[in-house]
Order: sequence, then structure tokens, then C-alpha cells
Amino acid sequence: MRYSLEALQTYMKRWGWDIAVVSGSDPHGSEYTPQRWRLREFITGFTGSAGTVVVTQNSSGLWTDSRYFLQAEQQLANSGSVLHKEKPGNQTWSEWIAEYCATQGKEHVVIGVDGMCHSYSQIDELKRSCPNATIVSSPDYIDPIWTDRPALPKDKVWILGIEYAGTGAAEKLSALRKVMARNGCSAALISDLMQIAWLLNIRSNDVLHTPVVISYCLVEQDRVVLFADPDKFSTDILDYFGKTDNFELHSYYGISDYLKEYNVGDGIMLHSKTLNYHLYSILQSKCPDRIVDMEMPVNMAKAAKNPTEISGFRQAYLFDGIAQTRFFKWLEESVSNGKKVSEADAAAKMSSLRALNPQYIDDSFGTISAYGANGAYPHYDYSVAKKETYLEPHGLYLIDSGAHYRCGTTDITRTVPLGELTDQERFDYTIVLKSMIGLSMAVFPEHTAGARLDCLMREPMWRCRLNYGHGSGHGVGHLLSVHEGPQGIRQDSNPAEFVPGVVMSNEPGIYIEGKHGVRHENMLLCVEDCRNEYGTWFRFDTITRTYIDTTCLACGILSQEELAWIRDFNRICIEELSPYLEQSEIEWLLTKTK
Amino acid sequence: MRYSLEALQTYMKRWGWDIAVVSGSDPHGSEYTPQRWRLREFITGFTGSAGTVVVTQNSSGLWTDSRYFLQAEQQLANSGSVLHKEKPGNQTWSEWIAEYCATQGKEHVVIGVDGMCHSYSQIDELKRSCPNATIVSSPDYIDPIWTDRPALPKDKVWILGIEYAGTGAAEKLSALRKVMARNGCSAALISDLMQIAWLLNIRSNDVLHTPVVISYCLVEQDRVVLFADPDKFSTDILDYFGKTDNFELHSYYGISDYLKEYNVGDGIMLHSKTLNYHLYSILQSKCPDRIVDMEMPVNMAKAAKNPTEISGFRQAYLFDGIAQTRFFKWLEESVSNGKKVSEADAAAKMSSLRALNPQYIDDSFGTISAYGANGAYPHYDYSVAKKETYLEPHGLYLIDSGAHYRCGTTDITRTVPLGELTDQERFDYTIVLKSMIGLSMAVFPEHTAGARLDCLMREPMWRCRLNYGHGSGHGVGHLLSVHEGPQGIRQDSNPAEFVPGVVMSNEPGIYIEGKHGVRHENMLLCVEDCRNEYGTWFRFDTITRTYIDTTCLACGILSQEELAWIRDFNRICIEELSPYLEQSEIEWLLTKTK
Repeated sequence: MRYSLEALQTYMKRWGWDIAVVSGSDPHGSEYTPQRWRLREFITGFTGSAGTVVVTQNSSGLWTDSRYFLQAEQQLANSGSVLHKEKPGNQTWSEWIAEYCATQGKEHVVIGVDGMCHSYSQIDELKRSCPNATIVSSPDYIDPIWTDRPALPKDKVWILGIEYAGTGAAEKLSALRKVMARNGCSAALISDLMQIAWLLNIRSNDVLHTPVVISYCLVEQDRVVLFADPDKFSTDILDYFGKTDNFELHSYYGISDYLKEYNVGDGIMLHSKTLNYHLYSILQSKCPDRIVDMEMPVNMAKAAKNPTEISGFRQAYLFDGIAQTRFFKWLEESVSNGKKVSEADAAAKMSSLRALNPQYIDDSFGTISAYGANGAYPHYDYSVAKKETYLEPHGLYLIDSGAHYRCGTTDITRTVPLGELTDQERFDYTIVLKSMIGLSMAVFPEHTAGARLDCLMREPMWRCRLNYGHGSGHGVGHLLSVHEGPQGIRQDSNPAEFVPGVVMSNEPGIYIEGKHGVRHENMLLCVEDCRNEYGTWFRFDTITRTYIDTTCLACGILSQEELAWIRDFNRICIEELSPYLEQSEIEWLLTKTK
Repeated sequence: MRYSLEALQTYMKRWGWDIAVVSGSDPHGSEYTPQRWRLREFITGFTGSAGTVVVTQNSSGLWTDSRYFLQAEQQLANSGSVLHKEKPGNQTWSEWIAEYCATQGKEHVVIGVDGMCHSYSQIDELKRSCPNATIVSSPDYIDPIWTDRPALPKDKVWILGIEYAGTGAAEKLSALRKVMARNGCSAALISDLMQIAWLLNIRSNDVLHTPVVISYCLVEQDRVVLFADPDKFSTDILDYFGKTDNFELHSYYGISDYLKEYNVGDGIMLHSKTLNYHLYSILQSKCPDRIVDMEMPVNMAKAAKNPTEISGFRQAYLFDGIAQTRFFKWLEESVSNGKKVSEADAAAKMSSLRALNPQYIDDSFGTISAYGANGAYPHYDYSVAKKETYLEPHGLYLIDSGAHYRCGTTDITRTVPLGELTDQERFDYTIVLKSMIGLSMAVFPEHTAGARLDCLMREPMWRCRLNYGHGSGHGVGHLLSVHEGPQGIRQDSNPAEFVPGVVMSNEPGIYIEGKHGVRHENMLLCVEDCRNEYGTWFRFDTITRTYIDTTCLACGILSQEELAWIRDFNRICIEELSPYLEQSEIEWLLTKTK
């Protein structure tokens, strides 16, 4: 990997760049990207899903979050790049650049970026923090260096039927157009792949585990222009769109030229936080007065699931509950009988059990299958580990996995004992459960943002002077990305308010380097609770249906109320799963939840 | 009062204004202002400490927060002004103006403001939200209407000695100048009255219960220019400053002309969120490139109390504990013996007991003394109530009061039973206590902002579908305003992080219109707890020393841990107060805390 970094540095000299920034994202701001845009990995060797790389002639730094600290340290060893940990109080990559600029004693530092792979607001912020730097946006600057760079995916596009989507594209477009009109916009340019897939009810296979279609979508009051590879669209699908809307398909790479010639009309809705710098700048230089910079209403609409999506989600978690019960039974029997089971074997078994379901499409992300000390890497990837790890009949095993079923998407983490546990393992197992239950039982008024609920999960740990660096909860898309916004439960402030229909993970954890990791993750559905003189109240309905192992709880940590919550949760799981399980499976489940 | 509104509307016609905005604040952004700037009250009759008034030819609206909803409804009746409740989801006053502008069918709406009484950022935001409006800033536009407008206060300035302030003005100025230099500033203009008083260790009597000095302070690297009424300064004080710094005193009203001629040098530190629009604009039009817009470092430094201030605060709460124990004993005996005690009598008694202490200077705010249904007004003001209320030997009495002692400032609320309580009163009394204890016991990592802890207090209430509209905690100044920033525990997001030394109130409440109100308020000191592999941990130390009445707790609401917290708190109060109390007082205290 060292080769790519040095090659970039050689080209930087040629271009006169002091700094190159590698966003690691794609032109759509995606967290999970097609192979073609995995520049972060290409330059540093780091395979995590988040991070920014800053390269100078004599340094290369990767900024990433706590989920990846341990993995990044390993993968960056001897790579020529060093790890900068993103956490409160630490310097951010843009602060690092600002300091670098200030201390170079040069009149003008030249910063090269791929303007397609940064949002407009990211680059705008960089400009503000480095007022004397010259920022050069060079789309696809990596091309001459990455000689065997993968092409765009060719898989066909398919339609998610109304029986799963619940709402047709025409209805979704109509709602969007109303908001456009209210904001004086004759057009809206959407670049977020999940938003486009949701809006048009289209899916494909363009990003690993994320069934989106690489595209941009320009919505006008009486026309939809989709920029995507035309080879991906069958005649059937074009017919389908022809029926519902005035639909045009243009080439994916043609968008820059199209926008240069485009007649914006009254106004165009763009979102500077998601649209890439290159495209935003084209419109910004043409008609700054006619840009309405706002979050696409599609984003909020997508997050609040409709009744069809909600019942699909519920069904998907039932499917998962069946597959996971069988998996954990198999795992316990295999490991205690001395069968050789590696982390990879376990992950494969989990996938294969899910795949038995006829609605199964794909896993929703790469399974995190981590035994013992490997569990301390919050986003552990067994496939890049130095050596294969085999599960033993003691200690904790953590599996974070999920699937796309035709009806919905799952994401669930369970940490289970494979035999004897240490006192610390029992304690950590239980305190993480206490944190998860804290959010599960929450009741809160309308207009509450996720950041405000975060400490309900953290305070039980904080009292023990324990913490975790990752977020507490993320939204989950419906056959889209397993991570979606705008709502989130995180330490950083996020003003997006909960509304009924939002599906949100609930996943506290504890990570003890060299020893073990514990994470429990359930999925929550935000529902209306009641209305009274204080306004409207919301609460969460847990939709996960995989049991919680109660055989290894530490005493004295959980309150009576919390213990009752676990009993109720397990009772519901068993009731709903029993019709689909064999008698021996039910009996086994009863021993795990007694 | 109706007269003032109509007079303003008459002048508005003459000036060609469609809208007049009355901020209700002073040129320093103060919450509590000298009488001269109580324009909000002058126009609407509303006497609360927060709110904005928007007047048109055929309407007048007051926007205020939930502490004042009931009071505003009463005071605005027949005033010609209507109440707009500030709460999440409701239209703000600037949104109301934007809608008004959009629906007038006029090319340009003219909005008149007193640019001295709004921050620069407030008017800047108003401009953004009403792009087609013309905003006219007319300082002191109220003058021709308010013919007997009060003049500036004439009280003398005094020095807060180092034995109370802990840090000298020279040292505070030196710290500020270092930050100025780091930010390339040769000057900083401070307009916040609390910041100026703290920085120079000066106090006066310019705002009721808030011992600040009406002034602006221009700090340069080797000079301090104070704009204030020179008659307020004795020769002694001028000598004192002459010794510590190159100190110049200029007339208060001369600042505009001074700034117009002022040579800014390398750069000037201003804070657009606190400096008024009029003065900021003078510098903005002169040298936009040399303005460094940032929060004054003084604000954060002032909030983190030094050891002298901390021990002063502790002593002040001990003083309060003595006075309050005597007060509640007197109250119980008086009311149960059938003595006629009005809310005003009780408030006066409370003040007089505090005033027995030789260090007592003044009350720190107008006492809220509210019996029964009056307690449902969070900021109840008995002095403006329609009729006098007498305390009876049943139900709840709420008293929120405090004092400036020479060593520190107090603010404390107790709600106490005066006899038999209803079940709802007992329940509300106890659930509010549970909320208060939730924050008292909190442990949290460095870099935690107040908004993140808010739900520790609210969740116990939220679970019962109860809530309160006001903030959960505010900073308290040291012989300054009883409300100070930048930290706060509120529903709206505030990024200011807790640091050791911050003194913060902890005051949840429940308000049942027509029945009763409960608020418990203790004062917290943020202290370092420990350091471990997760970083540095902070917690709160409760410094209030007034007992919590345990005779009226409802059963089954508090956990064993919470009950233990109350026992410990009361034990400490009794231990520390006993040396100063008579035997009969100690015995009485024991019966209240058993």
C-alpha cells in the first residue's frame, strides 16, 4: 500500500500541491461506497467505513472515529500514514490543516481536493479555516495514480414493489414537489443515493450490502431527470417510469455538462451539506440567488417509515429472531462439543441461516464476528485480521450482523457467553444491558432530538467511570443503507427530531483492549404514546426479536424494573418465535432466558 | 399602559415604520436591566425578565417563555398586546415578522429597531429571514414617547477586594491580553456588564439586585478605556486603577463617537452575539477584515470560579442555610398558630433573616413567594398580583430566593408543606425531588455540555408524562447576576462545556394551573472526580445547605439510592449548621428531616 501514498506524493509535487485531502467518500457523500471510490483504502490500506486522509510531502494522517481506533492502528502500521483519533478535544483534520498552513511560512499553501468527493459545505468550511490557502478542486485526481481503478457497477436496476415500499414513486414525488413549490423552487437536485432509491422505489447492487443505484436525480415540477448508467435499466423499468412520470435518463458522467447548460428557472433546491462541491459550485456560479440551500424533504420523509415499511421491519426482525436462535443454539453446541469454529465460520453460518428465508436478499453489512479480545474492536473485521481466531468454550463472543429481506432491513448485535465468564465480563455484559434498557424505556415529548437522549444510555456507565466512543443509535434504511439519517443518538449535537416511524438502533458497548468487548443492539421504532396538557408524547417500541441471554447477568446492577423489562422482552420473543421453531429449539431458548 | 402602545403606533406612522421591535433588553444584552431600558414593560405592562415585543399598526405581540405564561396572560389582558408562547414548534417572533413581511403584498416592509438594544447577530438574523425588508436602526427611538424616562443610576462604584474576588484585575487583564494576542487582536470591546464587573473587580448598584456598573470596556494591550458615568467613580477608585493599569475613563454615551474615530490597530475582538448592533456596525463598516468575532474569553474564565470564590460560595450557602432554617421554623409556627402571613410578609421575613448576617449586601433577585395555586407561576411575582394571598395551614408554599453576601451569591428554592397535602401534591413534591437528585448524582466525562445532561432530570418526569417548560439549570455569578452563562442545562442546545468551578443551579419543577407548583433548587459546583483510561471525569458537589423536608414524601417513587442521597444531604446540612443554631432550632430541623 505504501506505493500508492508515495505515488500520490510524487503527483502532488508535479501539480504543485502542498496538501492533498482524500475524503474516502464518493460523489454522493456515501458512508459505504463502490470499490471505485475507496481512495482512503487505496492510499493508506485502512478498510474502515469512515475517515479522512490528509497527505503532505512528508506526512500522511488518517482521521477516524473510535469504532476503528484499534483496526486503524494495525492497518496503518508501516503504511506511512499515522492515526489521528477523532474525539472531543482532539484536533480535527481541518484544524490540523489550518495549523499546518499557519506554520509553513508560505504566503499561499495549495490544498488539492477531489471536489466530487466532498460536500460543498466541507470545502466551504475548509476555506474559512484556511483563509490564505488556495484550494484546488480536481475531480478524479486519483485516476493517473490508480491505474486499475474499478469501473462503475453494471448490475441491473429493479423496482421495489408497492407491496414492500408502501408508497408509490408518484406519490413521493408529488409530496416533494409541494415542498419545492412552497420554497419557490422549480427544481431539486438530489445526490444522496439512499434518497434517490427511496424516492423512485428503485434498487440495484451498486454498493456492497447497500442496494442503491449510482445516480443523481433532478426533479422538476413535471419531469424527472435521472443521471445513471443507461445499461443498468431494462426496457420494463423505463416503461414503468414512462407511465408514472415524464422521465428522462441521461448518462451518469454527463451531469456536469448538463448543469452548466441547465436553465434553473425560478429556483433550485440543493443541500450544501450533501451535494458535492463540484456540482454545487457549477450552480453557485451560475445563479447564486436562485439556490435554496436546505435539507431535502425526502430525507425526513424517508426516515419516518410508512405502515407497510413498519410491518415489513417487524417481519424482518421475526425472520432474524428465527435465524439467530438457530445460530446461537448451533454455536453453543458446536463450541461446547469441541468443534473447530472460526470467527469466519460463525459469520458464514449466520448468513447461511438467514439466507434460508425466501425473502432474504443479502446481508445488510459485513458481519462483525469477534471472539474474546477481538470484541474490543467495535467494528472488528475478521477478514482483515492477521490470523484466524477460533471460538473457545469460555469468554464472550460478539456478533453484529443483519440482512436485507424483501420486507425490511435488520441490524442486531448480541454478545453471548460461550462458557465460563470472568467477573469483569459478567459486569460489563450487565452494565451494557442496563444502558440499552435505559433508552428502551424512554418516554419523551415531541420535538426531542436524539442527542438529548444519549445520556440516558451513558449515565449508568458514566457512574462506573466507563464510556464508549461510538454513537448510541443510528437510523436504519428500508432496503437501503443500514445507517441513515437525519436522526441519530450521538454525543455530537444533531437537531433532527424524533417522529413516529423512525427506526433507530440502540447499541451501547464497552471495549476492554486485550480482553473483551460487549455490545448489545436492539432496534427501536418511535411511536406515539399519548397526548396530554404537556403536548404529544413519544416512546420506543423494540422490534428486535432475538432473545437476551440471562444466564450470565451480574447481580445487583439491574433494578427490578430493568429485570422486568428483560423478562417481558424475552417472553414476547419466545411467544412470537415459537410457531416457527422446533420443540428442541424452544426448550433451548427457555434455558437461555430463564 | 395602553397609552404607550398607541403612542408608539402614532410615532411609527410618522417614521414610516410598518413594524417596531422592542427587545426589552439594554445596550449590554442584560436580562435584568436598569429601569431606563424597561421598554417591554413600558409598552405592554408585562414585568417579566424575558420577552420581545413586536408592534404593527394593528397588533402588538409579546413573545416570552413558559416561566411567564400565566403572568403574561394576566398582565396583557386589555393591554392591546397578545401573548405568543415561546416553545418548541411555535413560531418565533422573527418567524412571525418574516410571515408578516411575506403576506403584506408590499415591496418593502420597514422594520424599526433600537440597534443599541439588540445584539448584532439578532439583527443580522432578522435581515436574513426578511430579505426584502428594510431595517431601520434608531437608537433610543423611545425617547420622544417615554417623556419621563428614568436617567442612568448614579450610585458609586466600589471595589470587590481580593479577599473576596480571589484574583486581581491585573491578573485577569493579563490572561485576557494573552488570548487577544493569540488571536491577533490589539483590542477587545466588552459590553456585557457582568464580564466588565468581574474583569475589573468593580461593583455598583445599577440594576436592581445585580451589582454591576453600566459601562463598556475597551481593553488594549497596555491600556483600559472604560466608558461609564465619571460621577460614579471616587478619586480612590481612580487612584486604584491608575496604579494597576493605564486606565482611562470616558463618558458612557461617548462610546459611539469614540469608536467612529478609533484606530483599531491589528484587530479587535468583538462578540456579535453580545455586542449591540449599533456599536458592532460602526466597527464593521470601518474595518470588517480586522474584526475577530468570538466569545470573550472573560466569559468562560468568569464562570469557572477560583478557590476564593468557591469557598465564598460555600460560606454563602451556609449563611443561607442558617437563615432559611429559622425562616421555615418561623413560617410553620406562624401559620399553624393562625397568624396572618401574606406572601409578601413571608418574603420580607426571609430577607430580614438573611440581612442579619453582616456580610449581607442585597437580595440577589426579587423573591418568588407563592402559596398554593400561585406556585403554578414559575416566576410568580406577588408584588404585581391582583390581590394579596395569605398562607393557610395546608397545601404547598414555594419560595425561590437568594442573597448577595460579600463572599458569594445564593439562589435556592424550597417547596414546603404547610399542613395536610393532597396525594397529587405529595406525588409532585416527590417526583420533582427525584429529578433534582438525578442531576445531583451525575458523573460525566470532560467536554460534556449542559444540554446533554438535561434529560437526566426530565426522564423521571417524562415517564409520568409530566414536564416543565423552563431550563433545568443556570450558572450563578459571584456578586453579579444570579443568572450567568455560558454553561446552562436547558432543552435548547448550548455547546458550552462544564469545567471544574462552574456553579450551576439544579431546579426542576411541576406547575399545575389552579392547584399548586413545586420546584426544588439546589446549587451545584462542578468538580473533578477522577481520571482513568477513558479520560477525565467530572461530577457535581451540592453546596446548598438548606434541609429538604422529608415529612411529605410519597412512597414508592424514590429508589433506595435516592433516599440515601437525601439522608446524606440532610445529615451534612445539620452537621454544618448545628454550630450556628439554637438547640430548639436543631430539634425542629431533626423533625423535618427524619
